[in-house]
Amino acid sequence: MPAEPRAARQRGVNAGDEGRRALLPRIKGPRDLDRLSPEQLTELAEEIRTFLVEAVSRTGGHLGPNLGVVELTIALHRVFDSPADRILWDTGHQSYVHKLLTGRQDFAGLRAKGGLSGYPSRAESDHDVIENSHASTVLGWADGLAKANQLLERDDHVVAVIGDGALTGGMAWEALNNIADAKDRPLVIVVNDNERSYAPTIGGLANHLATLRTTDGYERFLARGKELLERTPLIGQPLYETLHGAKKGLKDFIAPQGMFEDLGLKYVGPIDGHDIEALESALQRAKRFGGPVIVHCLTEKGRGYTPALEDEADRFHAVGKIHPDTGLPISAAGLDWTSVFGEEMVKLGHERPDIVAITAAMLQPVGLEKFAKEFPDRVYDVGIAEQHGAVSAAGLATGGLHPVFALYATFLNRAFDQVLMDVALHRCGVTFVLDRAGVTGTDGASHNGMWDMSILQVVPGLRIAAPRDADQVRAQLREAVEVRDAPTVVRYSKGAVGPAVQAVGRVGGMDVLREPANGDERPDVLLVSVGALAPMCLEVAELLDAQGISSTVVDPRWVKPVDEALPGLAARHRVVVTVEDNGRAGGVGSAVSQALRDADVDVPLRDFGIPQRFLDHASRAEVLAEIGLTAPDIARQVTGLVAKIDGRYDDETARLTQK
Amino acid sequence: MPAEPRAARQRGVNAGDEGRRALLPRIKGPRDLDRLSPEQLTELAEEIRTFLVEAVSRTGGHLGPNLGVVELTIALHRVFDSPADRILWDTGHQSYVHKLLTGRQDFAGLRAKGGLSGYPSRAESDHDVIENSHASTVLGWADGLAKANQLLERDDHVVAVIGDGALTGGMAWEALNNIADAKDRPLVIVVNDNERSYAPTIGGLANHLATLRTTDGYERFLARGKELLERTPLIGQPLYETLHGAKKGLKDFIAPQGMFEDLGLKYVGPIDGHDIEALESALQRAKRFGGPVIVHCLTEKGRGYTPALEDEADRFHAVGKIHPDTGLPISAAGLDWTSVFGEEMVKLGHERPDIVAITAAMLQPVGLEKFAKEFPDRVYDVGIAEQHGAVSAAGLATGGLHPVFALYATFLNRAFDQVLMDVALHRCGVTFVLDRAGVTGTDGASHNGMWDMSILQVVPGLRIAAPRDADQVRAQLREAVEVRDAPTVVRYSKGAVGPAVQAVGRVGGMDVLREPANGDERPDVLLVSVGALAPMCLEVAELLDAQGISSTVVDPRWVKPVDEALPGLAARHRVVVTVEDNGRAGGVGSAVSQALRDADVDVPLRDFGIPQRFLDHASRAEVLAEIGLTAPDIARQVTGLVAKIDGRYDDETARLTQK
Repeated sequence: MPAEPRAARQRGVNAGDEGRRALLPRIKGPRDLDRLSPEQLTELAEEIRTFLVEAVSRTGGHLGPNLGVVELTIALHRVFDSPADRILWDTGHQSYVHKLLTGRQDFAGLRAKGGLSGYPSRAESDHDVIENSHASTVLGWADGLAKANQLLERDDHVVAVIGDGALTGGMAWEALNNIADAKDRPLVIVVNDNERSYAPTIGGLANHLATLRTTDGYERFLARGKELLERTPLIGQPLYETLHGAKKGLKDFIAPQGMFEDLGLKYVGPIDGHDIEALESALQRAKRFGGPVIVHCLTEKGRGYTPALEDEADRFHAVGKIHPDTGLPISAAGLDWTSVFGEEMVKLGHERPDIVAITAAMLQPVGLEKFAKEFPDRVYDVGIAEQHGAVSAAGLATGGLHPVFALYATFLNRAFDQVLMDVALHRCGVTFVLDRAGVTGTDGASHNGMWDMSILQVVPGLRIAAPRDADQVRAQLREAVEVRDAPTVVRYSKGAVGPAVQAVGRVGGMDVLREPANGDERPDVLLVSVGALAPMCLEVAELLDAQGISSTVVDPRWVKPVDEALPGLAARHRVVVTVEDNGRAGGVGSAVSQALRDADVDVPLRDFGIPQRFLDHASRAEVLAEIGLTAPDIARQVTGLVAKIDGRYDDETARLTQK
Repeated sequence: MPAEPRAARQRGVNAGDEGRRALLPRIKGPRDLDRLSPEQLTELAEEIRTFLVEAVSRTGGHLGPNLGVVELTIALHRVFDSPADRILWDTGHQSYVHKLLTGRQDFAGLRAKGGLSGYPSRAESDHDVIENSHASTVLGWADGLAKANQLLERDDHVVAVIGDGALTGGMAWEALNNIADAKDRPLVIVVNDNERSYAPTIGGLANHLATLRTTDGYERFLARGKELLERTPLIGQPLYETLHGAKKGLKDFIAPQGMFEDLGLKYVGPIDGHDIEALESALQRAKRFGGPVIVHCLTEKGRGYTPALEDEADRFHAVGKIHPDTGLPISAAGLDWTSVFGEEMVKLGHERPDIVAITAAMLQPVGLEKFAKEFPDRVYDVGIAEQHGAVSAAGLATGGLHPVFALYATFLNRAFDQVLMDVALHRCGVTFVLDRAGVTGTDGASHNGMWDMSILQVVPGLRIAAPRDADQVRAQLREAVEVRDAPTVVRYSKGAVGPAVQAVGRVGGMDVLREPANGDERPDVLLVSVGALAPMCLEVAELLDAQGISSTVVDPRWVKPVDEALPGLAARHRVVVTVEDNGRAGGVGSAVSQALRDADVDVPLRDFGIPQRFLDHASRAEVLAEIGLTAPDIARQVTGLVAKIDGRYDDETARLTQK
C-alpha cells in the first residue's frame, strides 16, 4: 500500500472538505457499500462513529465495543455477502454497526420496548443469526454451520467475530479444537483483539496475544526472508525447507502465533483493525483459503471518543444515558444493590483475612473494584470463565479460604455443573453473589436472571438468600460467609435498591413483614415474599384488605431450604401465595409447595413469578406489567381464588353433609 | 541412565527370580515406597498390574486407565508427600493404584455398597481430595489450591494429573489460562497422554500432542545443540541467544510444545510414563521449578494386559465382570436401552439424510458406533466438550440439519447454559438423548442422572420424553426428531430394558396403563408414572387394590410440557401421586403440581422421586430400596395418605357442619 494516498485521505477527512456528505443514510444494505470509494469508506466510518456517540448517549447501550469495530464491520460486509454468508457476532453487543449497515438506522428506541434490540435479533433481520449475549459461543455456532455447509455441499461462507476476552472462555477452546480438526472445512475466525473484554483481558492467552501484537511487520519480514533465502540456493532453500519442514519454522522467530498453529489453524495477522483496506485484503485471503483460518485484528475499544479512551477501567463498555461530550451520566442513580454489596465486602475483607473475591472479567460491574483496591492479592479475575471461577473457588475453599464469587445471575448457568459437582458435592464453603437477578429488562432475553432460584433448588446442601433491602444484603452476606461446609448464594436485583422494609415479627427464621389487620386466628392468605418484591407484596396485602381478605406477609430471607416453620404457618391460613422474581418452573413457589406436601399441609397454594418463556427487551417495569407481576394483578387473582375456594368449601360441605 | 542395569532389571522381573516376593501387601502408605530399590519398584508395578486385572475382573470397574498409570502413580507418591502435598486425579477412575498405595488394598467390594468407591473418596482417605468423576476439573481445583497455598504462605505442593482427553474440555483451557498468569505460583500439571480418553482423543489438541510424542529425544538434542553452539563462541552464542530471544527458539524446530509455552507454561517432556526413574527425575525437576509446569507423560492405556491392548475401541476403559484371561464378559446382558437407541438411529439415518449425530468422546458407550460405521460423515465426536456439543448442534440445526446429541444424563449439566441460550432461545431442532438417566448406582454420586428433568423444566419450549420401554424409545425418538423448532430430550435408564408395557387406553397424549379395577367414577388415586418406573407403578396399583384403594395409572410419555389432559384427569381422582427416577426438587412431580394449581385443581398430590442429596455408590436396586423408591414403600405411603385424607374430610365435614 503506497503511503502517499493514505496520507492524503487522512487530511481530506480531518479537514472536513468535500467528503462531508451524509453517506450513512444511503446505506440500505451491505451491497450499497460496494460502490463506495476508499475515501468514502473512511468518511462513512467517521459518520458511523458520530452517529453512535450521539445515539447511544441518548438511549444508553454498549458504546465502547461498537466504536472499536466500525472499520472491521464495514470490511466484513464488503468482503462477505450477508445474509447468504453468515457473519456471526460473539456477545452481540458489538453489532450496532452491523445493524446500521443492514437497514436498521433508527436507534431512537434502542433497547426500549418496541425498539431495536441491543443485540442481534433474528426477528429484526435476516442478517442476524445468533441473538444471545452470553460470551464465547460464536465459534461453536460457526463450527456447526460450517459442518452443515460441508455436508449439504453449500459454498456459503461462515465468519465468526470473537473478542480476545471471549477467547478466555472454555467454549472457545472446545470449538477451536474441533475446528482445527477439519482442514478442509472453510471457516473464517476474526479475533477482534482490543486487549480487554469488559476489563483488560487476563491470563496466559492475553500475554500470548500481546506478543503477537508487538510483531506488526512480521508478515513482510517473512516474505522478505523467504525471498532472500531462495536467492541463496546452496544453503538458502534447504534451510527454508528445513524451517518449514519442522512444521512451524521461521514464523516463530518473528511472531509466535504457535498456539493457533499448533492446533493446526492457519493464522493471518496481526492486522490494523482500523485500516479498511488492510482488513479487506486479509479477509479476502481468508475467504479464499478453503479451510479454517484466524484473522487477528487489533482494534481500540472506544476508538474516536475521547471520554471512552480516557476511561481506563472499561472504555465505556456499556453506558446508561450520558452526555455525549463529557461521557458523564445524565441522572445520578441512588444507592444500588451492587454498591451495597461492594462496600460490605470491603468491611468483611478487613475483618476476615480468609475472604477472597472472584470475578469473571467483571470486576467493576459486580462491585468488586473497591475490594480489589484494598486487597489486590485477594481478588482473582478468572476471565470470561465462570466454570473456572466456580471450580477454582472449590479449590480455594479446600485450601482454607472463603471465596466470594460475584457474577450476574444469568451467567451462573455456565457453571451449574461445577456448583453442583465441585462446590456442593465437596461441601465447600463458597459464597456466590448473584447480581442482576430477576427481570433486568433492557438487555433482553439472555440477560434476565430468571433461572437461578430454580436450577439451584436441585443442589444438595446449597442455601439461597434473597435479601429484600440494603440492610438485608449486608446481613445475609455476613450470614452466608459464616457457612463453612456448603455453598451459599446471595441474589439480588439490578439497579437502585428500595427503601428498608422492617420486620414486625419473626417465625422460625422468617421475617414477618405484616400481621393480618384484624388479628384473625385463621387469616385468609399467607403471602410469601421473595427478595426485592417485599414492598409489592405489602401493597398486595393492602389491596386484599380493601376486599375484606386478611393476610400475613412473610419474607423467608433464606429461600432454600424452605424454612421449617413455613408449613405450620401455612396451615393456619386458607391460601398460600408465593411471589418471586424468578421463573415459575421449579422456583421458590414450587419448593414451598413441595415442603407443604411433605408436611401433609394441603392448603391451596398459588405461585406468582416469571412465566417460563424468553422475555423481549423493555424496561423492568414494562416487563413486570406485561407478565402480571404487579400488586394489582396479584391482588385481583388472589381475590378471585379466595372467592373460588369459599365456593368450593360450600360445595364440598354440601357434598359431605349429604353423604 | 545407563542401559545395562535397566536390561538386567527387566530380565530379573521377566524370569520371575528372587524379585518375586509379594511387595504390595507391605505398602501401608506412600512412605513405604521410599525404601524400595529400583528393582523392587519395577516388581511392585508388576504385582499391582496382576492385582488389578484379577480384582477388577471380579468386581467390574475401570481397568484400562488404571493399568496405564501404575508407574506414574508410584513415581508421584515417591516424589511428593501426600497428603501434605495434594495429588489430584482428574476423572478419578484412574485412582485405583493411588488407593493401593494409600492403605486401601481390599478391592473385594469395589463399587459395591459398603466397599471402596470407584473414584477417590474423601470419606475413605485423607489422600483423596476431589471425588467427582466429571472430567477436566482438576486444573481448576489445582489453581484454587495453589492460590490458597500462596496466600497462606504454605509450601506444600499441588500436583494435578490430567489425561489428554480431558484437556479437550473447555474448563481445562480456562484453568491453563489462569495458571499461566502467575509465574510464581508453584503447580505441577502431569499430562497423562495415552492418546485416548474413552475413545481416541480428537481434535487439534490431539494432533498437537501427537507431534510432541514423535520427538522423544528432543531434550537431549536441545542440550547437545546448546553445548555445540556455546563451543562456537563467534556465531554460536549469539545465535543461541537470538533463538531464545525470540521467545521460543530452537525447541520449536524439534518439538512444537508451543501451545503450552505460548501460554507461558514451562514444559517438561515427553517422558516415558512406564519408566519410573525417568518419571521421578522429571517430577523432581518440576517440583523444584517454583512455578507452573507441565510434565508430559506418555502412557499406554491397558498396559500389560493383552485383551485390553487388543481392544481398539477403548482398551477396556470400564468393564463389567469379566474373565481375567480372555477379557470376555461373564454374564451377557439382555437388550439394553443404549442399543435400542443405537439401532433406531441407524434406521433413522437411512430414512432422514438430515439427521446427524454428536457425541462427547463417548461414541461407543452412548450407542452411536453403528451409526458412525454406516454414516461416517454424519457423526461428530467433539471431545470431552459438552458445551461445544450443544452449541455446535445449534449451528448444525440452523444450517439445516437435525442433530441428535447422545450423552449421559449427568453430563448434560455441563451444557445447561448452551441448551438454554443457544438451542432453546434460537428455537433449534436439536434432540438430546440422555442415557444413564436416574439412579445408576455403582459409579456413585456424580454419575447418577438425577438432575436433568428438574433443570430442564426451566428451558422454554423444550420437550422431554421419558420412554417406558424399548418400543417407546423407538417411537419417542422418532417423535423427537420430527420437532423442528424446539429442542427435544429423550431420557432413559442405564442397563437392561424391561419388558414392553402395553397401554390400555389414551387420555390426551398420555397412555393409560391401567384403569381402576372397580370401574369407579371417582377413583382414589391417579398414579403418574415416569419412564422406566411403569412396571413398578403397576405393582403399586396392585398393592393399593389389595388395600381397597382404586387407582388409575398413566404414563404421560412426554413429561414436559405437562399434558393438557392431566389436570382434568386429576380432578376425577382424590389423590394424585407422581413417581419419577429423578431428583424430587423441581422435577416432574413439581411440574404436575404446578399445572394442577394453574388449572385450580387442588387435589392433594404427593411426589415420589430421588431425595435431593448425593447418593453413595451401591447397586441400583440397593439405592432404590434405600431411598424408598420401591412399590411396597410407595404403596404403604399412599395408603397412609388416603386414610389421612379420609380422616381430614371427616374432620372438615364436622367443622363445616358445626359452623
